[in-house]
Amino acid sequence: MSVQQNVELSPDARGGASGATLSEGSVGVDRAGVAFAADAVADTPSLDVPSGLAARVPTPLPGDPRLARLSLNQRTTANWTLREAIDGSVAAGLGAIGVWREPLADVGLDTAAGWIADSGLRVSSICRGGFFTVIDPAARRAAHDENLRALDEAAALNAPTLVLVPGGLPEGSKDLVGARTRAAEAIAELAPEARARGVVLGIEPMNPIFAADRGVVSTLGQALALAEPFAPEEVGVVVDTFHLWWEPGVLELVAGAGERIVSYQVCDWITPLPADTLLSRGMMGDGHIDFPAFTRAVAASGYAGDVEVEIFHADVWAAPGAEVVATMARRYAELVEPWL
Amino acid sequence: MSVQQNVELSPDARGGASGATLSEGSVGVDRAGVAFAADAVADTPSLDVPSGLAARVPTPLPGDPRLARLSLNQRTTANWTLREAIDGSVAAGLGAIGVWREPLADVGLDTAAGWIADSGLRVSSICRGGFFTVIDPAARRAAHDENLRALDEAAALNAPTLVLVPGGLPEGSKDLVGARTRAAEAIAELAPEARARGVVLGIEPMNPIFAADRGVVSTLGQALALAEPFAPEEVGVVVDTFHLWWEPGVLELVAGAGERIVSYQVCDWITPLPADTLLSRGMMGDGHIDFPAFTRAVAASGYAGDVEVEIFHADVWAAPGAEVVATMARRYAELVEPWL
Repeated sequence: MSVQQNVELSPDARGGASGATLSEGSVGVDRAGVAFAADAVADTPSLDVPSGLAARVPTPLPGDPRLARLSLNQRTTANWTLREAIDGSVAAGLGAIGVWREPLADVGLDTAAGWIADSGLRVSSICRGGFFTVIDPAARRAAHDENLRALDEAAALNAPTLVLVPGGLPEGSKDLVGARTRAAEAIAELAPEARARGVVLGIEPMNPIFAADRGVVSTLGQALALAEPFAPEEVGVVVDTFHLWWEPGVLELVAGAGERIVSYQVCDWITPLPADTLLSRGMMGDGHIDFPAFTRAVAASGYAGDVEVEIFHADVWAAPGAEVVATMARRYAELVEPWL
Repeated sequence: MSVQQNVELSPDARGGASGATLSEGSVGVDRAGVAFAADAVADTPSLDVPSGLAARVPTPLPGDPRLARLSLNQRTTANWTLREAIDGSVAAGLGAIGVWREPLADVGLDTAAGWIADSGLRVSSICRGGFFTVIDPAARRAAHDENLRALDEAAALNAPTLVLVPGGLPEGSKDLVGARTRAAEAIAELAPEARARGVVLGIEPMNPIFAADRGVVSTLGQALALAEPFAPEEVGVVVDTFHLWWEPGVLELVAGAGERIVSYQVCDWITPLPADTLLSRGMMGDGHIDFPAFTRAVAASGYAGDVEVEIFHADVWAAPGAEVVATMARRYAELVEPWL
């Protein structure tokens, strides 16, 4: 029995607004007494996305307490509308959703806020603000204003944090130190605005592969230093396994980061890297990252928030959303949740 | 006048053993009174490799003191044999060559040592040893023995350093901390052997893009910490702009590294990254790295050794070696040498 057979897809689930809902009736109980989908005990197991290999653990079902902190970052199911992502998350029994601003804008903030409130999902984060390494004063002002709008959206959706992607080197510039300085200045300008809205700025250190063109904050150590001058209610850090797994001493840094951690995002580092490095984020377990070790460090920090799965990968995006969500729930239950 | 027209290629220069020699007669004097090839003052300027754009500065000619510390790392002209690389370096007036072990093995150590002694070139480094993150005791012993052979070669060629590529995660392993520990253990075992041969081990921290599959030492800070327990005559660090340009605080780290720096390698970080990330090392000036700033930091450290140009790039490899060397000499004269 495949994941798809476990899920009743409404006629327009792939292209329309209603999404998938889990069917009743195929539930078992594993050794821990937790409900799981019967597909893994049937003769034909579920297939993982994108590997195509048989699932290694049963799919946790809605109501399974292991799913309580699992959040679908919208970019993991990039072809789903916000409506579909909400429905898909509810159908899978997830506790939260990570909302991107572009699909949010497609439906409007008020509509989205209503949908999300009705769904019972928490919004684990808004992705994304930042992009404040520009030089031109007018561009800097525009970036600030755009970040204010993002903060307003985060506040309206009760998201605890706005994820800040710092931005890369401006066109033609090789002044990395200057770009990092401007990022720090922009954060300082934004911090009181965030606090006023009850939203914490989440600085996302990004893998150095993106230092030139996307994010000039490259390590957790650097992000923590950027956050340090501010209150934890104003500025925190986003801990993303893909970006940080390689950093020397990162487990100790994470464990000691305490209330600075405002988001924990998981996906794997896979090799060979896909040709488009922006799409090189793999499903947990398909790559080289030691999720138990990383997650233990996050737990040691005291982080009690949601765990977002954020995967940019062409084959994941091409797969049916419900299969993607089922795979991520299995991998999370296997590799992440037991160590939270 | 193109670079090729400045260079007399012997009939077998592209496929045989004799290589290129510079012709006489087309020499000018720039504002600093330094000789340069007349191609840049002619109507048709030289074209840079691989951009195909007109050269921005004249090509320094043999005898130009600016070339004294410039070294051709053999992988920059990957299709040249060792004989061709020696001849090409001499023809271009370079001071040194960075020798790779594979082309060295093709001709044998004694022959190579004779050629290099006759050429007048220094050997700036031997690339490469390392690869000591393996787990199996027999494999670790084999890696150690291979590194001893590499040290012997470095000593025979009077190379000041053996470049150590640490190696990645062993197949199936996700234990990055363990791999780094084994690297440290292997360095400790190798250090006295290096000292006995008058060769310094050069730990090469590698861009985190390679942390999984090539080099688990990811920052200069980490490499310096690995070197710290040893005498500078035993263990140092390789400073490669491609690997380190993004590291927060790297300029201060470089400037303070003193005699630990045993090799300075330059090439650029280019975007978008080529599909094969191993071939993503660009010609200086084609990417995002601030070479003057980086080179000033290297100079501040007191480093007085050679500067290797090490470029892995499919289009560079496909170009005639003499044009590659001419481009790298121009870019070096423009972006690196003035700040040494």
